[in-house]
Amino acid sequence: MENRVYNFAAGPSMLADEVLIQLKEELFNYNGTGMSVMEMSHRSKLYLDIFNETKNDLKKLMNIPDEYEIFFMHGGATGTFASVPMNLLKNKADYIVTGNFSKKAAQEAEKYGEVKVIYDGKDNNYSKIPSLDELEFDDCDYVHLCANNTIYGTEWKEFPDTGNIPLVADMSSDILSRRINVSDFGLIYAGAQKNMGIAGLSVVIIRSDLIKEPNPVTPSILSYELTRKNDSMLNTPSTYSIYVLGKVLKWLLDLGGLEEIERRNIEKANLLYDYLDNQDFYRPHADKGSRSNMNVTFTTPDPDLDSLFASKAAENGLLNLKGHRLVGGIRASIYNAMPIDGVRKLVDFMNDFAKENR
Amino acid sequence: MENRVYNFAAGPSMLADEVLIQLKEELFNYNGTGMSVMEMSHRSKLYLDIFNETKNDLKKLMNIPDEYEIFFMHGGATGTFASVPMNLLKNKADYIVTGNFSKKAAQEAEKYGEVKVIYDGKDNNYSKIPSLDELEFDDCDYVHLCANNTIYGTEWKEFPDTGNIPLVADMSSDILSRRINVSDFGLIYAGAQKNMGIAGLSVVIIRSDLIKEPNPVTPSILSYELTRKNDSMLNTPSTYSIYVLGKVLKWLLDLGGLEEIERRNIEKANLLYDYLDNQDFYRPHADKGSRSNMNVTFTTPDPDLDSLFASKAAENGLLNLKGHRLVGGIRASIYNAMPIDGVRKLVDFMNDFAKENR
Repeated sequence: MENRVYNFAAGPSMLADEVLIQLKEELFNYNGTGMSVMEMSHRSKLYLDIFNETKNDLKKLMNIPDEYEIFFMHGGATGTFASVPMNLLKNKADYIVTGNFSKKAAQEAEKYGEVKVIYDGKDNNYSKIPSLDELEFDDCDYVHLCANNTIYGTEWKEFPDTGNIPLVADMSSDILSRRINVSDFGLIYAGAQKNMGIAGLSVVIIRSDLIKEPNPVTPSILSYELTRKNDSMLNTPSTYSIYVLGKVLKWLLDLGGLEEIERRNIEKANLLYDYLDNQDFYRPHADKGSRSNMNVTFTTPDPDLDSLFASKAAENGLLNLKGHRLVGGIRASIYNAMPIDGVRKLVDFMNDFAKENR
Repeated sequence: MENRVYNFAAGPSMLADEVLIQLKEELFNYNGTGMSVMEMSHRSKLYLDIFNETKNDLKKLMNIPDEYEIFFMHGGATGTFASVPMNLLKNKADYIVTGNFSKKAAQEAEKYGEVKVIYDGKDNNYSKIPSLDELEFDDCDYVHLCANNTIYGTEWKEFPDTGNIPLVADMSSDILSRRINVSDFGLIYAGAQKNMGIAGLSVVIIRSDLIKEPNPVTPSILSYELTRKNDSMLNTPSTYSIYVLGKVLKWLLDLGGLEEIERRNIEKANLLYDYLDNQDFYRPHADKGSRSNMNVTFTTPDPDLDSLFASKAAENGLLNLKGHRLVGGIRASIYNAMPIDGVRKLVDFMNDFAKENR
């Protein structure tokens, strides 16, 4: 496909060829309408059809129960770090810190109420997810966690049962990568630029009864009450990003839904982890039981070699393998759109690089 | 061009053919990089080159002095309705209400401090911009106005001199349509989906000395201090919308900058207003001295005829001429990307429609 590279970026990240091809085909003239989706009024029937179909496809794909609302909002996940406490935090919230973004979410929430960090993985350098029995919840408005830690490469395999307390999950980097039971959560959110398309869109899935009058200092664009009232069109939403999400959803539905993409993601991740577990040059960061299927993190014996690895890999069409600037090392983000051939090529390269540099 | 329609929508709205053609060409593979701009990490050199060039081109095109910062933010203009008071309102702010959006801006600001509406055009049904000598400013943190009122079709031709008080202008619907003197303003902002490309991006141009510690309840994504510190990358910005803005800027620079687009916009608007002034079927809404060159609003003798007008026009490839749901009537939005041929065709249609329906 026109010299496509394998892009292992943590987000924004790869889109499926099938999606890009359609975007290109429809860019100048959508369905014979004489205009691009980019040019459509968000209130036109033409666009509303796209918008509603996207919502319905998300509902179908994730099996979202009727008592949940789907919001398309501004501000990415970082905006949602604020909107969650602004809308849900009346007295106190529990935060589970398993990495950089859950820490940021907790810090943002502190502006709006009492926040208790009930777990912080800093002592193990965020290499593992807590076991469910070591968590104790307060009587609070919600418990917040980050389902997949992009920077450290860890992922919750099962989620805590918080009883009557709503569980809020930032799923920015693993939403749509596996089956989850939406009704286990009060609120799920994600920035779109990893598994849901392109940047500039935040998706919020919320159980309707949790939508109440927000904190009076809440900017209108972050109010769940106003977002529901206006069906995500209090102002112009990110119309094109929503359309791209729609294409991603159709692609996933066509290939067999979340069951099939989960199978593929496990196959891709196993390929990498099996290789890592059967050599002694690279050292994986995450504990075995906490490994992310989306972001695989590891180091070579030496930080200079890590850099060399990333630059040599780039010369071989394997891009953006440098670890996050906070932690260094190497990170391979293998979201839904990364083909298994990209992972195979990466394993071959890792093998060659290890031989040459040990 | 592939049966393009003339799209008179108020925003999102038309893009220039030249821009769409480039977007399409580069969609699958940007400049031989093997990836789409949509897939690029916002921190990659590849993307940062696009980002910085876009900023520089905006600076060049608008002649923005060095002491101003350019921010690419989330949340559209409605988000900025909140971020302006959250960052600038310490004691009191004056708001000039000339239409729906300036009213909303004032209401949003009331959440964060004392707001005084020093002018409200509701008595004249927002058909005119106040004369400069009828405005009196308080000793306050800033004066806010909306440069062009999309719904009512009015536009400030010259701006008040507020002395040492920073003037803040929402230019969502006329930025880049004419030359302005940036140093007359403390802050200029715009949602991108009219003259700056596509939805999902808010551009803020602010005099650096106005950036101070925000109200402590400010969500991080709306903090000007954090936005400056992180060069608009506190979190993933709307990468593709910024790239589209870059293409729009190149298109404007190539055709001769703001002087030339202003000339074309005046020519287009005059064509419509001259026609309106020389017939007695349609009634223009805005006072002569306050007419917008971007949104031309008028009515037929009868609301039912207004609807018929919009639907017949659509059959003739002239789309989205229905007035805003708040005011009814007819609105022709003729932003930068509307070719003069579209306006000519509209005038011909208006003439025919008047003959058939008087």
